[in-house]
Amino acid sequence: MYRAPVDEITHALKAVSGLGEAIDDGKGGNLSVDLIDAILEEAGKFATDRIAPLHLPSDRQGSRLDDGQVTTPEGWKRAYLDWIEGGWNALPGPEDHGGQGLPMSMAMAAMEMWNSGSIAFALCPMLTMGAIEALEKHATDELRATYLEKLVSGEWTGTMNLTEPQAGSDLGALKTRAEPAGDGTYRIFGQKIYITYGEHDMTDNIVHLVLARLPDAPAGTRGISLFLVPKFLVNEDGSIGARNDVFCNGLEHKLGIHASPTCTMIFGDGKHGDTAGAIGWLVGEENRGLNCMFTMMNNARLAVGIQGVAVAEAATQKAVAYANERTQGRAPGWDGDGMSPIVHHPDVQRNLLTMKTLTGAARAICYACAHAIDMSRVGTDEEKRFWNERAGLLTPIAKAFSTDIGSEVASLGVQVHGGMGYIEEAGAAVFMRDARITQIYEGTNGIQAIDLVQRKLPLSDGACVAAYLDELDGVLETLRASNDTRFGEAGRYLEAAMADLRAATDWMMAKMADGEKQAVLAAATPYQHLFGLTAGGIYLVKGALGSANGVDRASPARFYAENLVGQSGALRDRVEQGAASLAAAGQALVA
Amino acid sequence: MYRAPVDEITHALKAVSGLGEAIDDGKGGNLSVDLIDAILEEAGKFATDRIAPLHLPSDRQGSRLDDGQVTTPEGWKRAYLDWIEGGWNALPGPEDHGGQGLPMSMAMAAMEMWNSGSIAFALCPMLTMGAIEALEKHATDELRATYLEKLVSGEWTGTMNLTEPQAGSDLGALKTRAEPAGDGTYRIFGQKIYITYGEHDMTDNIVHLVLARLPDAPAGTRGISLFLVPKFLVNEDGSIGARNDVFCNGLEHKLGIHASPTCTMIFGDGKHGDTAGAIGWLVGEENRGLNCMFTMMNNARLAVGIQGVAVAEAATQKAVAYANERTQGRAPGWDGDGMSPIVHHPDVQRNLLTMKTLTGAARAICYACAHAIDMSRVGTDEEKRFWNERAGLLTPIAKAFSTDIGSEVASLGVQVHGGMGYIEEAGAAVFMRDARITQIYEGTNGIQAIDLVQRKLPLSDGACVAAYLDELDGVLETLRASNDTRFGEAGRYLEAAMADLRAATDWMMAKMADGEKQAVLAAATPYQHLFGLTAGGIYLVKGALGSANGVDRASPARFYAENLVGQSGALRDRVEQGAASLAAAGQALVA
Repeated sequence: MYRAPVDEITHALKAVSGLGEAIDDGKGGNLSVDLIDAILEEAGKFATDRIAPLHLPSDRQGSRLDDGQVTTPEGWKRAYLDWIEGGWNALPGPEDHGGQGLPMSMAMAAMEMWNSGSIAFALCPMLTMGAIEALEKHATDELRATYLEKLVSGEWTGTMNLTEPQAGSDLGALKTRAEPAGDGTYRIFGQKIYITYGEHDMTDNIVHLVLARLPDAPAGTRGISLFLVPKFLVNEDGSIGARNDVFCNGLEHKLGIHASPTCTMIFGDGKHGDTAGAIGWLVGEENRGLNCMFTMMNNARLAVGIQGVAVAEAATQKAVAYANERTQGRAPGWDGDGMSPIVHHPDVQRNLLTMKTLTGAARAICYACAHAIDMSRVGTDEEKRFWNERAGLLTPIAKAFSTDIGSEVASLGVQVHGGMGYIEEAGAAVFMRDARITQIYEGTNGIQAIDLVQRKLPLSDGACVAAYLDELDGVLETLRASNDTRFGEAGRYLEAAMADLRAATDWMMAKMADGEKQAVLAAATPYQHLFGLTAGGIYLVKGALGSANGVDRASPARFYAENLVGQSGALRDRVEQGAASLAAAGQALVA
Repeated sequence: MYRAPVDEITHALKAVSGLGEAIDDGKGGNLSVDLIDAILEEAGKFATDRIAPLHLPSDRQGSRLDDGQVTTPEGWKRAYLDWIEGGWNALPGPEDHGGQGLPMSMAMAAMEMWNSGSIAFALCPMLTMGAIEALEKHATDELRATYLEKLVSGEWTGTMNLTEPQAGSDLGALKTRAEPAGDGTYRIFGQKIYITYGEHDMTDNIVHLVLARLPDAPAGTRGISLFLVPKFLVNEDGSIGARNDVFCNGLEHKLGIHASPTCTMIFGDGKHGDTAGAIGWLVGEENRGLNCMFTMMNNARLAVGIQGVAVAEAATQKAVAYANERTQGRAPGWDGDGMSPIVHHPDVQRNLLTMKTLTGAARAICYACAHAIDMSRVGTDEEKRFWNERAGLLTPIAKAFSTDIGSEVASLGVQVHGGMGYIEEAGAAVFMRDARITQIYEGTNGIQAIDLVQRKLPLSDGACVAAYLDELDGVLETLRASNDTRFGEAGRYLEAAMADLRAATDWMMAKMADGEKQAVLAAATPYQHLFGLTAGGIYLVKGALGSANGVDRASPARFYAENLVGQSGALRDRVEQGAASLAAAGQALVA
């Protein structure tokens, strides 16, 4: 059973992400090193004791829909209510609406643990958090006054209504309509799909944020506006009013995250509420809805990256525990009686170390990204801009690398379990099923790669990525200076990887300058892999160099560098060489 | 929906596996090129029209157990009966027991298509085929006379009863007992788990092959004997007799292959049958059961490799079809109205070509292995030995490479589907769930790697692998001589990979000669990847060079070489460098 790895997480926060240095430099706000430990210790307890035990039973039971009502699995509502009662939903919320205003790094660290307990559980607060951000930044004072406090406390939850059957990755194609009612409100009509926690039984109200088109809106992405559509209208005194004309008419039957209801939402079919059309309020400016949505989507992307880390951590813990229990054969050097625990077999160790180090690498990238978000909120404008760009650069990598390794690690976990891994009761396969969605939602990892190369590399004319690569090189310089033999050949592998990453980055910049869109798009995914692989390896080294308390983090960093980073040359090659063969062979795929 | 790719399969058989040359050389027995086409065309029709349509509904319904009786999903029994009625089970069976005696290559080609239709369906005949082989080679005339004809026709099915809770990869630990009854029969007592089709409703009888220990048997793998234990005893006239004391007392709840009942079998608890103990007959010699079992396991391993190919093919077809239907965004160069089909997006093409070429590479390896088995049955003793070793060498690669890519391709297929991929009704996720077991059963892929390096590389003092590598180099020579520019840089990548494979092979041989077991075991899996990756790429080139009918197979071969083979250097590096860091970091995994 999962146990929150609080020491690993606080170490990554303090010694790798930059938060430790920020606190030392007086940039940590109210946060102290001790406070980090204390808060995460408590958060970890809730994840370990209350969420994780629900994971497997809730997967089996799933959420059910009857006559528009969703029933979550046994124990789900109780756990959620206790969780908000503990103040956990308010952790990152704005202080002027009852939140604790803790930095994003802390929120993500806690979120990792909730997600290790159960992605399906943590998804709901993740969406609420996104709704809070969007309202905080873009909503009118009145809307903020009405909704924010309840969302911050978790008494109500939030949703993001983006996707429609014909509009997934391409939101420009969406058709949901918003008609002005003449009284400052709007009537929303349309169907949205894949709405996470669009309906559930845990709270009295649900606050939907919905993308829709005004009657005279331009076509495409520039004609989309954002609306707030509550499940129940809210009276002037804050009490729950009439039912709004929005309801859930279907739940998806999914590969994983069964406890999380994935809803088809119908707005304005006239069967619910007192009006024809769901009553909505504009959030932000007309036709600027996508901008508002991107505010929340960026942080949601990081949060999905955290889900990748979380599921990888949980799967790794489970596999390591199983490998220590299960005995088969006799490993070389085993001198005990009878069969050896399979953890002694080199091939099993290789799988486990791959799992463990990929998890650590992804965690470091995600926390570095969270820290950049925090830093972008303090300091001078110039500093804010710098860190905002850094966060932008790291977000697609945090999302894609972490979720790619989340699935990989979960699958390796199944393999370590052998035949048992394929049996659902063993609780290894469920991680693989849960993890698989994280590579898809909040922008598929292919979309992340395109975002990385087309929007993020050009930031400040390339100065953003250049500064980041210099920072990574700085870690390698420290490694060289350390002469620490525990790192074996790690320095050599990582230096080669940095050279590959720099060359691939230059290639990308040059191709973009030349307008060779096809080549850039063909190379985006291998470039993203190369970036994450290299940064992750260097962060593991950074963490090991900053490891004071006797824990050996050098050997795992070495394993990662010597066993996984070697493919950097091949990835660079794919970036630079891949497009030609893709173009040659791709045409035959068209029916 | 899946359509049997008969042209691709026959091309791989004729132009890649060696079967075409064998026919040309008069070594194809009764087989002609036309006959191959005709048989596989018909087999493909059954797979496409009868099996594939059952896949998704049977996954949803699964097999059920009530009071010891297993009910397979709707339509399952009818499809099976029609399938044996069509003579398909008898395809590879021995002619003197009613089989058609067609070569293994043909059996595997047909089996690929059944498995693309549904792994869960094809599993049952696969196990029957194994039972036939074991009985044919090792059973007494009496047992053969009683059982073979019905097994060959498929009127009865066969099972392999190996695993026990404490004995999975390590069969030496098994405890099932066999006591001589004094009349030439034995009484079997014990519990077996993970028994595929151990109980079902499709046939009148089930013939279990069971590993068990005689009372005075030595400990470990040298004290295991093989027994035939029928569900129903067989009267002298061949009719069904009394119920034997063996029954199913549980079905596993698995990640995938839901239609295939995975049974816990109880032998000899006295509740069934007229005797205490299940009545069994010895197959082969006492204490030599593992040898008999290996006979069937080798071919079963190849058949599992074929399952990897099969699921990859089905997943690829589905993803290509979806990518041609689904429209999102506008791909570069797209000049149609509105959104483009996603198949035009470079990142989607990269996924699809990766899927397609990995599938083709794995198929070629499997068919080359099947052909080697066929060749080991004809010619001089020296020739037989050569081909038998070749088959031995290729079997672990065929099993592990094909099933690894089966899971990878199925997962990429989910990704191509985007959000739809995560919804079970779309029918993409099911391939991922089904594929996952193939990396585990019939010996995990880690076990295959150990088999490859410890048992297969040393064959004929390394002459077996040396001859194979020379053969692969011969293809590259032909490629060089062709000066065919459609292959781009494929030659360069594959030559580098061959150099890496040769160097890694030499390293392995040297380490084994030095008795460095730990290093060999640590490096086995990356070595196996390197081997499969390289051989697969060279086979794609071979197939493209031998492609006469205007199909462009050169561009996909080029894509594979330029995009996937580049990691050969990193894999070689892992082989040669991996053990040190594994040893350094591995110890910390031990609880």
